Amino acid sequence: MPTILFAAPSLWPEYQTALPQALAEVGVTGPVVTEARPEDVDYIVYAPSSPLQDFTAYTRTKAVLSLWAGVERIVGNTTLTQPLCRMVDPGLTEGMVEWVVGHTLRHHLGMDRHIVNPGHVWDPTCPPLARERPVAVLGMGALGAACAAALQALNFPVTGWSRTERPGCLHGEDGLRQALATAQIVVLLLPKTPETENLLNAAQLALLPQGAVILNPGRGPLIDDAALLAALDAGQIGHATLDVFRVEPLPTDHPFWAHARVTVTPHIAADTRTSSAARVIAENIRRGEAGEPFLHLVDRARGY
Amino acid sequence: MPTILFAAPSLWPEYQTALPQALAEVGVTGPVVTEARPEDVDYIVYAPSSPLQDFTAYTRTKAVLSLWAGVERIVGNTTLTQPLCRMVDPGLTEGMVEWVVGHTLRHHLGMDRHIVNPGHVWDPTCPPLARERPVAVLGMGALGAACAAALQALNFPVTGWSRTERPGCLHGEDGLRQALATAQIVVLLLPKTPETENLLNAAQLALLPQGAVILNPGRGPLIDDAALLAALDAGQIGHATLDVFRVEPLPTDHPFWAHARVTVTPHIAADTRTSSAARVIAENIRRGEAGEPFLHLVDRARGY
Repeated sequence: MPTILFAAPSLWPEYQTALPQALAEVGVTGPVVTEARPEDVDYIVYAPSSPLQDFTAYTRTKAVLSLWAGVERIVGNTTLTQPLCRMVDPGLTEGMVEWVVGHTLRHHLGMDRHIVNPGHVWDPTCPPLARERPVAVLGMGALGAACAAALQALNFPVTGWSRTERPGCLHGEDGLRQALATAQIVVLLLPKTPETENLLNAAQLALLPQGAVILNPGRGPLIDDAALLAALDAGQIGHATLDVFRVEPLPTDHPFWAHARVTVTPHIAADTRTSSAARVIAENIRRGEAGEPFLHLVDRARGY
Repeated sequence: MPTILFAAPSLWPEYQTALPQALAEVGVTGPVVTEARPEDVDYIVYAPSSPLQDFTAYTRTKAVLSLWAGVERIVGNTTLTQPLCRMVDPGLTEGMVEWVVGHTLRHHLGMDRHIVNPGHVWDPTCPPLARERPVAVLGMGALGAACAAALQALNFPVTGWSRTERPGCLHGEDGLRQALATAQIVVLLLPKTPETENLLNAAQLALLPQGAVILNPGRGPLIDDAALLAALDAGQIGHATLDVFRVEPLPTDHPFWAHARVTVTPHIAADTRTSSAARVIAENIRRGEAGEPFLHLVDRARGY
């Protein structure tokens, strides 16, 4: 009977019923506790807000199970030698697809000029069809691939780019230049790693067709903020809709807030949904107990 | 060699190259003219703006081919005894799907509060998932069915309603009450007929859950404007995004323009695209010449 330490106190009210229920559904009966002696803990359920930072004493722990998809704040922790699993929540993927498809269509259709139209202008100029609007998705993991598929189903010509080689995707620096050269809308869904920081810098922004739109529901540091602001002011970038930032909540004095060509959404693109996330955690504990391989295991070398 | 009268002078600049080209592609060599003796005309290409109103003298005309999907302004013309075909343009369907999915996601995600956020409020409340947002599509013809399928692919639970019985759809007055009872977003894609005028009146609006959103890319008269304004003011309807109106362009003094809970889009949801529409007209002329049945023939009794 495994001992499961729920090490994210601020999320306990959400999970204290959902997690035992999800465990029961997969036949696991171990107690879920919020405190335990490190040497007694079989699984740690973890979030970036967890006070737990030193994993040295957790000698029998079979896995650290993150409630978040992004693990950049824990992956560099040298005391963490246990297997680390990311959250890949089907609800999170669905929410991300909805945000990405919604904001892609918003910019594609030019909705903002109808939503805010104080002059009551009737201008029946039609947007092009989606099949005439190339989109690039940078980052073709589970989230990127799901968004690319949903956009393609609506006829958008989608170019996927991945840092490492993947079938059907562009990759590498040449591939990135090629992806950016024609994209009218760019979706950033890369993990945050040292290699992806400031991926969209002044040089890359300059490769895009004039007036291109940036959607960033991935990670704040993927973009060089100052370069983006300069490209927006110059008209090289038509609009940026950003859901993630280097500092969150976005500080009230940050120029993104007041910029006419920036839309701030408050890190809502992909929220982990308690019930489906609890099922993912429970399934990994079931696997650990059955000696089966864990799902969504983080590759420490790649950092995600 | 058929004589084809292009009877929509204002659209001639768009079609004068596209239509002969589309005809050549299907092997039809007849001349396309803008003036002809009525008794010489084999096919009439028509739009609601056409000055041609009396079809009596067109004794050898095999079909009147509308460039518009909506034929309500011509279907009651008693001089028109020739077969009448509607436009069912694949580009038009695609554009409609993009508008409907885009505005459904806009309301689903609550985008407006991020697009217009002068107080720079960071409120990370997540919307529900699409699978928790019931949508009703009223009118399940070619356009309605395509929109319903695209919304379902994004996990929205979609209820289709049709005036007449169709497989997999609700129908009739009881069916309408059932469709409205749970719909948080209602999409109007019915044709305009005497039966559908004011379909959404005060009584039907009252059946919806409080705060429901109306999307009307169909026909202006489907909605009782005064009843909608009253329901918006009372909070029974949360928002209405309207693309079609009883009078277009929407008169500058119409209360829809200034209403905080109404978004006006200027009849752009489904624009006929010249090149794809020309191919549909050409295909019907080819069929007429080959003695094959016309596509998209209007049923005069139903009115569409």
